[in-house]
Amino acid sequence: MGRETFRVTFQPEGRSAFVLRGTKLVEAAGQAGIILNQPCGGEGTCGKCRVEVLDKAPPPGAPDRKHLGAPLVAQGWRLACQMAVQSDLVISVPQETRFFEQRILTEGEGARYPFQPNLRKKLVRVPPPTVQDQRSDLDRLTAAVGTGGRAAEGFDADLRLVRALPGLLREHGPEVTVVLAGDRIRAVEPGDTTDRLWGVAFDIGTTTIVGSLMNLADPARADFGPVAGRTNPQVHFGDDVVSRVSYIEKNADGLERLRSRLVACLNEIIGELCASAGIEREAIYEATAVGNTTMSHIFLGVDPGPIAHAPYVAVLRQAVDLEAGDAGLEINPNANLHVLPNIAGFVGSDTVGVILASGIAREERVQFAIDIGTNGEVVLGNRDRLVACSCAAGPAFEGARIRYGMRATDGAISKLVVNEAIEVAVIGGGKATGICGSGLIDAVAELLNVGAIDETGRIADPAAARSLPDAVRRAVVDFEGQPAVVLADGEQSRAGGPILLTQRDVREVQLAKAAMRAGIEVVADEFGVEPPQVHRMLLAGAFGNFVRRSSAKRIGLLPPISTDRIEFIGNAAAAGAKAALACRDCRHEADRISRQTEYVELANRPDFQARYMEAIAFPPHP
Amino acid sequence: MGRETFRVTFQPEGRSAFVLRGTKLVEAAGQAGIILNQPCGGEGTCGKCRVEVLDKAPPPGAPDRKHLGAPLVAQGWRLACQMAVQSDLVISVPQETRFFEQRILTEGEGARYPFQPNLRKKLVRVPPPTVQDQRSDLDRLTAAVGTGGRAAEGFDADLRLVRALPGLLREHGPEVTVVLAGDRIRAVEPGDTTDRLWGVAFDIGTTTIVGSLMNLADPARADFGPVAGRTNPQVHFGDDVVSRVSYIEKNADGLERLRSRLVACLNEIIGELCASAGIEREAIYEATAVGNTTMSHIFLGVDPGPIAHAPYVAVLRQAVDLEAGDAGLEINPNANLHVLPNIAGFVGSDTVGVILASGIAREERVQFAIDIGTNGEVVLGNRDRLVACSCAAGPAFEGARIRYGMRATDGAISKLVVNEAIEVAVIGGGKATGICGSGLIDAVAELLNVGAIDETGRIADPAAARSLPDAVRRAVVDFEGQPAVVLADGEQSRAGGPILLTQRDVREVQLAKAAMRAGIEVVADEFGVEPPQVHRMLLAGAFGNFVRRSSAKRIGLLPPISTDRIEFIGNAAAAGAKAALACRDCRHEADRISRQTEYVELANRPDFQARYMEAIAFPPHP
Repeated sequence: MGRETFRVTFQPEGRSAFVLRGTKLVEAAGQAGIILNQPCGGEGTCGKCRVEVLDKAPPPGAPDRKHLGAPLVAQGWRLACQMAVQSDLVISVPQETRFFEQRILTEGEGARYPFQPNLRKKLVRVPPPTVQDQRSDLDRLTAAVGTGGRAAEGFDADLRLVRALPGLLREHGPEVTVVLAGDRIRAVEPGDTTDRLWGVAFDIGTTTIVGSLMNLADPARADFGPVAGRTNPQVHFGDDVVSRVSYIEKNADGLERLRSRLVACLNEIIGELCASAGIEREAIYEATAVGNTTMSHIFLGVDPGPIAHAPYVAVLRQAVDLEAGDAGLEINPNANLHVLPNIAGFVGSDTVGVILASGIAREERVQFAIDIGTNGEVVLGNRDRLVACSCAAGPAFEGARIRYGMRATDGAISKLVVNEAIEVAVIGGGKATGICGSGLIDAVAELLNVGAIDETGRIADPAAARSLPDAVRRAVVDFEGQPAVVLADGEQSRAGGPILLTQRDVREVQLAKAAMRAGIEVVADEFGVEPPQVHRMLLAGAFGNFVRRSSAKRIGLLPPISTDRIEFIGNAAAAGAKAALACRDCRHEADRISRQTEYVELANRPDFQARYMEAIAFPPHP
Repeated sequence: MGRETFRVTFQPEGRSAFVLRGTKLVEAAGQAGIILNQPCGGEGTCGKCRVEVLDKAPPPGAPDRKHLGAPLVAQGWRLACQMAVQSDLVISVPQETRFFEQRILTEGEGARYPFQPNLRKKLVRVPPPTVQDQRSDLDRLTAAVGTGGRAAEGFDADLRLVRALPGLLREHGPEVTVVLAGDRIRAVEPGDTTDRLWGVAFDIGTTTIVGSLMNLADPARADFGPVAGRTNPQVHFGDDVVSRVSYIEKNADGLERLRSRLVACLNEIIGELCASAGIEREAIYEATAVGNTTMSHIFLGVDPGPIAHAPYVAVLRQAVDLEAGDAGLEINPNANLHVLPNIAGFVGSDTVGVILASGIAREERVQFAIDIGTNGEVVLGNRDRLVACSCAAGPAFEGARIRYGMRATDGAISKLVVNEAIEVAVIGGGKATGICGSGLIDAVAELLNVGAIDETGRIADPAAARSLPDAVRRAVVDFEGQPAVVLADGEQSRAGGPILLTQRDVREVQLAKAAMRAGIEVVADEFGVEPPQVHRMLLAGAFGNFVRRSSAKRIGLLPPISTDRIEFIGNAAAAGAKAALACRDCRHEADRISRQTEYVELANRPDFQARYMEAIAFPPHP
């Protein structure tokens, strides 16, 4: 049976994933960045992962019939954890089946965080003063809001608000809408605007910035606001954080230049989100942001210099609340901006967001949360203890330093299997331009399986490689005096020339995966567990959502943990920013995570070098 | 024996008072604005009011010998409560004898408030980061400060401070001085600057602005900083609060214009204070301010319009903390400004300051605190309950609407007695220009005593006034068809013409004193006491410190309370602002006073009109 790659498209987003035959639908959804509920862990026993197959659905299994019933099954509903992809598909994912949206934001059973925004609006009637009621404007307002009137003391409103108050009450009173942050009055508006209360959550990545708009006036609609992304415009000043810090150090106005580019981009995203939702910028009253520590520093106008030089410390670990306008955001002038706290110089608030969204800091069972990338972050722990490190894996998984490497965009080989021949899946379909991280890991894993690469990482000499399948043996060629493997030939390639995996590429993969793996091992040592003992390993971030788990284990990037205990959790950093926007208590939990997570500096561990050297070799054939 | 007026000068201030023969030295000091300790209430039994007579001292009495001992008595020390003025004198007042300074600011027995400024400085050593210690800059700083290090959470420092931190620590570390407000870090400075910590307290009056500089680094010197005053430059826009509000309402930029004039004046005062103390503006890290409600609103840029129109409410009652720079004050850029809370539209934070400084809100015994003026404030109560009102006395006591009226400045008749002839004391000595409030009250009281004015306020017809002393009878003349009294003839007057007390002037005095007295009575009714039952009546403010108590009682301005229970407490509003600067807890007490004081609106009291009509007549001859 020849394996094939199929395109699975998920609605209503329209996001697609290219997956190999037999891939479980729940995994395909994860690869498309859509995370489904799986309370039973994919056993088919809870029935929570129901989706509707809009094309012809495959025959139902016993769990489908049991949990969905005959009418739904007849309409094409299936359990995503049970159904294997055998063809191109279009799938509709109802909201109740979605993991993050529901677990984070909805109250009730299984909810991770209640819907409890920092902000709320309240329509109040502020009676005009009389000779019998000579309370001050602010006292009458405060009493009408119901935070205790004269009993409430302290100045819990902005002076700007107080300045506007006499005119507002006399020209537009007595009914006004108050925007409250806890008991603090953040804004007062004429008339009833209670249905107009939005927030925006940002995930500020080194490469990509994502903004999510949330309707904070309506829990039922909170999580269905638009999402928009942009390439971080700072990429013009360097691909990675170190080159950006270097730019700042070499240019007197470098920090301000990078900051203002970033802020302009955030404002563009806000504009796009507002247009999508049909609202005005002034309807956004709060913003949250996560990012790596360097991005957060730049966003706040704090020099990130110390992060880039030994001993690599942050200037600021704590969360910051400031006027959104002071940070340059063009939203409501009374809006607050909450930037989540960092953990260390190379473990930022984006990791805090991952921990929040994954829930590992709330559960008794010990779990990993891992974000694989140039600076990969590894967190291990439970509600009692968390240990984290940052792994300098280098940019190989993002395609850099790889002969035909590229980011996971259109034209990238993202999946690869070796059957009789080498078969590839290309993002966007059609001919290939190069290979991205997940394809690279697949390629090395598959070539290891057939013996075209040995445990030391050496590509087999084509002359000596008699035992290889013919197609693979023919694919091994000479490249600059060393063996290389043709992954796609001229006909499969957009440029017309072959796409190779070179010996040097394999070495780069070895160095990168060894760094990640050694980090995982050191963190596990520090925590006092063996990696295979952990309850689950949660993979966050774009890369984590596209890599094939078996391949990641085959090359030794991930430890030998049962594949069904490795889960994709999507863009968990962004989900964490949304959780902090939708749930006030989440911010306290974030503070606790920031404060309590034990950061392990790998450069400082005598065992790291040993683990690293060990991890450079590939695991033996199983 | 002919009575005379003597000049008593108090050192080291050099302030003088003109007093009648036999005046107790403690009262003369009060009239000069210097309040002495009198724990025993002037009985001569405690010995706390000791002063040094620099001229020839009168013979000592038994209490002097008992409490001071022979050596001090021989050097000219006397008890100020026992010594009567019999000649011109120069007196030196040691700090321990001073009332406010000591009772407010020094810890220990008799202290009203501990020296416990909101701010303190601490020299700390912030260790540079190492591979073993990768805490963020702010975490290392916080830990060095000792507020709990990583255990302390929340962002308790300004972003501006964080932005400066990496450079500061790396270029000037590891020793830095931290400015702390509670646990909050307000500023960080290179090196040891712990001896440089000043504050400034403002009393923003409608007419006069007073600033006091305090050394917050040294309790022993805190209260000996320089004091500077200026005429409020807003007087160009109107003499009283109502005319200033009117200016604001008629001019679009009126509020900003009045505010900026005021702020410029405060900055001038700050400049003068800094020059006196030999410090830089940046050495001032905190400012406090009291003022009437309108002045506070203008200072904060809040429209005072609602205060000037029925029902006369404030926009803002609460205390406000803001960056001093945001209010325009030119002091340390990290300085805080604390504006004390108001009570009502016409009872401002200056009255809260009076309550604070007088201590009436802390004692069990019921006391009055009264500030006589155009808008006089009356407060009555104890630690359990406080009742206040504002009396629209009108400007008669400030010299307005009085034929020869003037403010209590050089050339004003400030005291007057009728013996064989009418004798006057003139501020600054020499010939008179006019008469000020205290002189006016003396004049009416003395003329009542000799029968030249009757209980209805009518000046005796000179033809019919047979029973009057000759000199007084001759002084009654006709002025525009009504009787008037010549207080000073052409020879005693700078302008060369006589200075008269007209029938109309007497009517103005009647209206003004009736308003004050009716307020006192209504407040007493509301509290449920008879005024003579109260423990003490404390007179605050410039006017209160110059009026003769017996005269004020004689005309019925004050109720018939024993004179020795009427005390002068000086500029208690300014003392309250200083107390709030020197003692953090004072601010909480001010908040409590603002919240709990029951404000009585006289216009709303059915009994006020009756009390007012009753009080227009003068009390019968005793």
